[in-house]
Amino acid sequence: MSEPTSLAIRAAELDAADELGKIREQFVLDAAPDQEPDDAAVYLDGNSLGALPAAVPAHVADVIAREWGQLRIRSWTESGWWEAPERIGDLIAPLVGAAPGQIVVGDSTSVNVFKAVVGGVRLAGAGRDEILVDAATFPTDGYIASSAARMTGCTVRPVPVEEMASAVGPRTAVVLVNHVDYRSGRLADLPALTSAVQAAGALVVWDLCHSAGALPVGLDAHGVDLAVGCTYKYLNGGPGSPAYLYVAARHQALFDSPLPGWNSHAEPFGMRPEFVPVDGARRGRVGTPDILSMAALEAALSVWSGVSVEAVRSKSLALTDFFLECVSSYVPSGRVSVLTPLAHEERGSQVALQCDDASAVMAELIARGVVGDFRAPDVLRFGFTPLYLGFGDVERAARVLAEVL
Amino acid sequence: MSEPTSLAIRAAELDAADELGKIREQFVLDAAPDQEPDDAAVYLDGNSLGALPAAVPAHVADVIAREWGQLRIRSWTESGWWEAPERIGDLIAPLVGAAPGQIVVGDSTSVNVFKAVVGGVRLAGAGRDEILVDAATFPTDGYIASSAARMTGCTVRPVPVEEMASAVGPRTAVVLVNHVDYRSGRLADLPALTSAVQAAGALVVWDLCHSAGALPVGLDAHGVDLAVGCTYKYLNGGPGSPAYLYVAARHQALFDSPLPGWNSHAEPFGMRPEFVPVDGARRGRVGTPDILSMAALEAALSVWSGVSVEAVRSKSLALTDFFLECVSSYVPSGRVSVLTPLAHEERGSQVALQCDDASAVMAELIARGVVGDFRAPDVLRFGFTPLYLGFGDVERAARVLAEVL
Repeated sequence: MSEPTSLAIRAAELDAADELGKIREQFVLDAAPDQEPDDAAVYLDGNSLGALPAAVPAHVADVIAREWGQLRIRSWTESGWWEAPERIGDLIAPLVGAAPGQIVVGDSTSVNVFKAVVGGVRLAGAGRDEILVDAATFPTDGYIASSAARMTGCTVRPVPVEEMASAVGPRTAVVLVNHVDYRSGRLADLPALTSAVQAAGALVVWDLCHSAGALPVGLDAHGVDLAVGCTYKYLNGGPGSPAYLYVAARHQALFDSPLPGWNSHAEPFGMRPEFVPVDGARRGRVGTPDILSMAALEAALSVWSGVSVEAVRSKSLALTDFFLECVSSYVPSGRVSVLTPLAHEERGSQVALQCDDASAVMAELIARGVVGDFRAPDVLRFGFTPLYLGFGDVERAARVLAEVL
Repeated sequence: MSEPTSLAIRAAELDAADELGKIREQFVLDAAPDQEPDDAAVYLDGNSLGALPAAVPAHVADVIAREWGQLRIRSWTESGWWEAPERIGDLIAPLVGAAPGQIVVGDSTSVNVFKAVVGGVRLAGAGRDEILVDAATFPTDGYIASSAARMTGCTVRPVPVEEMASAVGPRTAVVLVNHVDYRSGRLADLPALTSAVQAAGALVVWDLCHSAGALPVGLDAHGVDLAVGCTYKYLNGGPGSPAYLYVAARHQALFDSPLPGWNSHAEPFGMRPEFVPVDGARRGRVGTPDILSMAALEAALSVWSGVSVEAVRSKSLALTDFFLECVSSYVPSGRVSVLTPLAHEERGSQVALQCDDASAVMAELIARGVVGDFRAPDVLRFGFTPLYLGFGDVERAARVLAEVL
């Protein structure tokens, strides 16, 4: 047995001092059935699918067996099903710096991008017919923005995120930006870009998929107009769990959704032929909420009780710093290049490494219990979820990466 | 103890002869925790929320604990998550008379109405700028059709379903019709109306929410263009379970979705900036599929193994006939009037009774264990799910209704 390296010793010390270390117990991180128990993966793919919070199985089982199985239709009122989209939205709100009443949960991120971009174009008013999308956007945002543009008489212009503040102009209606770039892990400057967009008279839509739950967002503090995000990454809501839409309180009265389903009607059970939108966050709803997935998400969010996003952010930066240090120490020089910005203010909660044979390297890493993901054509992507990852995991991941390389 | 009535005796005979009677065992129909076991409800609200199939809890528990909890991200490929929307669509297909490869599951009914109506308008081509909606439509269809019209330069015209065949004209792009009216239970003539719409050069979108799983639909046989439906009524998928979209094979290559999310891209993991739609049913997908809800739905659909929709339809008509007979025998004459057509070819799987104090009557019925629902302003609505209802339930429901009235 080899001596622990100095980095391994430091990892143990950092873990011992970690105030968030105990939260790991609230997650299921067992080995897969085809692995030895000791081979439980170092799971660095929480930015794709968060690990299972231990509170989820029993809660979902109760919703199925008792609320659906026994109370059936009564649960729409008696079990709080009807209000779930707003209630769960209010659980997400503090994690992204929003006061209650501005976030509603439901539909996929793509569908919420459509609501937000079309709604934003309508709020921007006549004479503004251009939508800016960050050039490196997660593709679906760009596809949906193009559809929104086509259906509202706008054009879409992709602009590198660092040029957006100067690209926004008198014809810009909406700027759609990813808070953290899904590929590189670069964190955009939300306060500055929000100000610049608004100074030009346009509205900003932030996509928080890769930031919510990993770092403070400050939607209200920075006066963001609209935002969307998924809940299955750092919020651990489960595979394909419902996304959310934030409409700032000041915009709600004029928010004009392109998907005015009966759930956003002022009197949904009045069955009126004319559409009259409800006030508040509920205006972002569309159809019947997906209760089983919402139940999993609601239980998953209980993990955040007593946890501050600021503490999570501190640990996230410490984890990614430590990973970069371990990679630099263990991996032969020149074998990978770091795509993620080194400056803290430009870094999300992931590290992306460029590497020629990235696809094969990631397959081998996964085979050896270090689970990240590959993003074409040449990126190894590692996500760091501070709620369930420790410094020992990070050191092991870098060590296995060095072995594979 | 009173003698059983002749209707009660006949109910017992009908139940004894019922070839679908055993399927009831595949559902959970226990009393609620606040009821005596013997007071288990007669559940006549399966057209709002279907009862829990017994196969669901264990399957969802396995998807959560093993597929999510242990395999995590691997499940997108290893547990068949990625293909779930098409795979489950193909389970629904035979129930609505569709060959495989034309139905995709996901999103809410409202969102699918938007895809189908906008997609239909685009398929209809230039020069057609009118959308007809049945005047008695479930409201969300009308709201969404209006939004689709606004965003495609069309106008919406509500037309009573019986006048639609003559109202469709050279400017009509799309006709959106409910197969069974949610309020009255009237079944529209799908073959004739589909032919009439297509003879005028327009496309038809059928909303199957209140027919799929209750009666044969024959989408392919009758050459339907597009269809949508929910899965939480007669398909028992659970509260807010994902809806589905049918695009006839002949339209798929030109189907141009207003919600082109990354899941409908030809190469979803290629992360290309340009949208290139995939072929086939998958073109109707948008964002990441909601796996937990899909898992419940997939288990729920296992109930249909070996069951023909034709047998379900026969029993459905026998149940509603018998209910009407019991109501006519037990309920004082003039106290209710039957809103549902008596002719079999015009009847769905529900009976709607008009009654002055319907809201109070339904509340009392529910208190006495007969669960239907109230639809404003004056309708008692009773849904009959042949898979788990017997003739004894029907007789009891009519008897309790008579007591309440």
